[in-house]
Amino acid sequence: MWKPLDTRGWRERRRGDISGVLGSVREIIDTVRRDGDAGLIELSRRFDGFEGGSPVILPEEIEEAYDEVDDRLIEALCEAEARITHFHELQKSRSLWLEEIEPGVTLGVRTRPLDRVGCYVPGGRAAYPSTVLMTAVPARVAGVPEICICTPPPGDPLTLVAMDIAGVNEGYRVGGAQAIAAMAIGTETIGKVAKIVGPGNVYVTAAKMLLRGEAEIDFPAGPSEIGIIADMTADPSYIAADVLAQAEHDPHSASVLVTTDAGLADRVGREIERMLASAPRKEIIEKALAHSGYVIASNRAEAIRVMDAIAPEHLSLQVADPMALLQEVGHAGSIFVGPYTPVACGDYASGTNHVLPTAGYASVYSGLDVHHFCTRSQVQILTEEGLDAIGDVVEALAEAEGLAAHAESVRVRRRG
Amino acid sequence: MWKPLDTRGWRERRRGDISGVLGSVREIIDTVRRDGDAGLIELSRRFDGFEGGSPVILPEEIEEAYDEVDDRLIEALCEAEARITHFHELQKSRSLWLEEIEPGVTLGVRTRPLDRVGCYVPGGRAAYPSTVLMTAVPARVAGVPEICICTPPPGDPLTLVAMDIAGVNEGYRVGGAQAIAAMAIGTETIGKVAKIVGPGNVYVTAAKMLLRGEAEIDFPAGPSEIGIIADMTADPSYIAADVLAQAEHDPHSASVLVTTDAGLADRVGREIERMLASAPRKEIIEKALAHSGYVIASNRAEAIRVMDAIAPEHLSLQVADPMALLQEVGHAGSIFVGPYTPVACGDYASGTNHVLPTAGYASVYSGLDVHHFCTRSQVQILTEEGLDAIGDVVEALAEAEGLAAHAESVRVRRRG
Repeated sequence: MWKPLDTRGWRERRRGDISGVLGSVREIIDTVRRDGDAGLIELSRRFDGFEGGSPVILPEEIEEAYDEVDDRLIEALCEAEARITHFHELQKSRSLWLEEIEPGVTLGVRTRPLDRVGCYVPGGRAAYPSTVLMTAVPARVAGVPEICICTPPPGDPLTLVAMDIAGVNEGYRVGGAQAIAAMAIGTETIGKVAKIVGPGNVYVTAAKMLLRGEAEIDFPAGPSEIGIIADMTADPSYIAADVLAQAEHDPHSASVLVTTDAGLADRVGREIERMLASAPRKEIIEKALAHSGYVIASNRAEAIRVMDAIAPEHLSLQVADPMALLQEVGHAGSIFVGPYTPVACGDYASGTNHVLPTAGYASVYSGLDVHHFCTRSQVQILTEEGLDAIGDVVEALAEAEGLAAHAESVRVRRRG
Repeated sequence: MWKPLDTRGWRERRRGDISGVLGSVREIIDTVRRDGDAGLIELSRRFDGFEGGSPVILPEEIEEAYDEVDDRLIEALCEAEARITHFHELQKSRSLWLEEIEPGVTLGVRTRPLDRVGCYVPGGRAAYPSTVLMTAVPARVAGVPEICICTPPPGDPLTLVAMDIAGVNEGYRVGGAQAIAAMAIGTETIGKVAKIVGPGNVYVTAAKMLLRGEAEIDFPAGPSEIGIIADMTADPSYIAADVLAQAEHDPHSASVLVTTDAGLADRVGREIERMLASAPRKEIIEKALAHSGYVIASNRAEAIRVMDAIAPEHLSLQVADPMALLQEVGHAGSIFVGPYTPVACGDYASGTNHVLPTAGYASVYSGLDVHHFCTRSQVQILTEEGLDAIGDVVEALAEAEGLAAHAESVRVRRRG
């Protein structure tokens, strides 16, 4: 079951094909655009069997949800929220920096939060309170004044409690492509947002891609994956446990171990079989293991090349010198350094984010962080002296590009 | 001609409609996907009348281009390049920061340049060497190892010289949607890129939007615009000069003056008429003035609200206290503070970038800078002690979400 893997064409293979659902997603979008809230209610009835009407999650429902959730879990969510807040606070840029780069020429950058964002939190058969924290906390830390959350009906108590802990009081029980359409276009009750973040299935992803001209997105989403670089110093049971944790997400999840030690790959395989026997989500794991496996690299440089071609969502470094490897290896969504850093920690509570680019998209996009929720404006302040220092260059280049009025806008000021 | 302007629905009105060209752009993309270089050569012949064959710009052509360009202009380009480099260097993040947020829990962010990017530089009847600098220099400063530039044939000497000054030695004479397709998909000579940046016409924009799943883009492009907030202390001739500079770009350009001083608006109108008489690009300017004008706000707060609804590409603050206003006003692509800071300076030589979001997209996107050319990876390093500190929370949340193997990946390490 645990076998050598051919990783050629990895990125293309891992990119979900949304073409099969585009037709139905376009219809859903049209319905929401045309019918607004009434369309949402009808779609929730059709797809989720939800007869509850209004998608608005009321404050009293959140209060009631607290009664249904174990206090230990509430505490765990609060602890996770505190760490996620702490780490995301560290990412913040100064709201304005300015530097006089030469006399009279001051340049800088002003950073502002987005005005309004939407977080999509999957639901249905399971609840993902951690995704509420991972999407809403960075937005709140960035200073976004309006954050809304959409999650499929009926809306699990854990999800509702997590919303409150994340500091979001605007929630809607609407899921799938219709939730994305509502946030991107706006309805009577759900205001249009500037950006939509959060994971989702192929319908959600298709809607995000189709509506990108109306609301920006974090990045295309796909099934979760882990890349592990390990050497003979690694503990095979740790690696096997990480592979199983990755695999239990979804039948489409994938794990790749890249190692120079063929013996380690075998030992990991034996550990996987042993652990699998008692794994509650054995069936899902077995399906995910079908796209998983190991690559034996002939040396460290080749191991890095193989992993760089994958640019994995999660990258685990279980080698003797992980800090050196951290500097050498290429793009990855989130990097887990050393033996005591299972991906599960980043999924929940170390403070880093778990909304990450998959399928090689880490080579283009960054995992969700505070910067996703901000815009940067460049700023310039010239004095008369500063304008004089650069005026000749501006006039010369403007004239060369045939833009005489540009040159004149400098000249009129230099004439005083 | 200079008149009160109704800015309601501004963002929607300014967003170009690409639907009219989608069909022909899809055909162009298909041709490039199917025929590669041969397709490019055929499309350049058809659309640009270019019979020169290969799109590759050779090193000796760049050398020859130097002979055709005035030394004063070469110097001006070098001076602009130095300032743009300086400012973009200031934007760079540390390649790795780590902080131990509690004993044994170290978190941080690693920043890496993209592997390969493409810059689109418009051409045809005019040359835009400044756009070469504005797209390529930030990529070079970010550390992108492969930067290519596409510009419509035949390729102006000024553009070729600017390429060399920007430090780019991979250039192609191919324009329009076919250039975007070549960079996003890849051909025999033009390697696929991770991201495409730079302005372009409606065909270029449509191709960028259609190919966004294959190569990410900077942001949707549209006609240029300026928003000016001014009070009675402003010099009407400066404002008029800025309006004319904006207007000469393109018949679709637009300028909006927002002021509490009706007298200033009138004085600006008189200055515009006076200056227009001698403006070389009078016809273009007159067309652009048709979508331009002023808004009289009843007070400062209303002026800010009107401008925030526009979120202009260029924002000029010509008021008595521009530094205070800089802190209060909302999203804008690039902000020009005070009377001696014409937009033309940012267009060419102050060091800030001129590739900026238009049509209200500044409320979602940032102007081109070093960050557009980097990815951020989150990093976590736990020790045994650190894992123990957060292990309970991770296990509790994993179990609550029904992900037992996640909990087990923590437990197996805590058992030691």
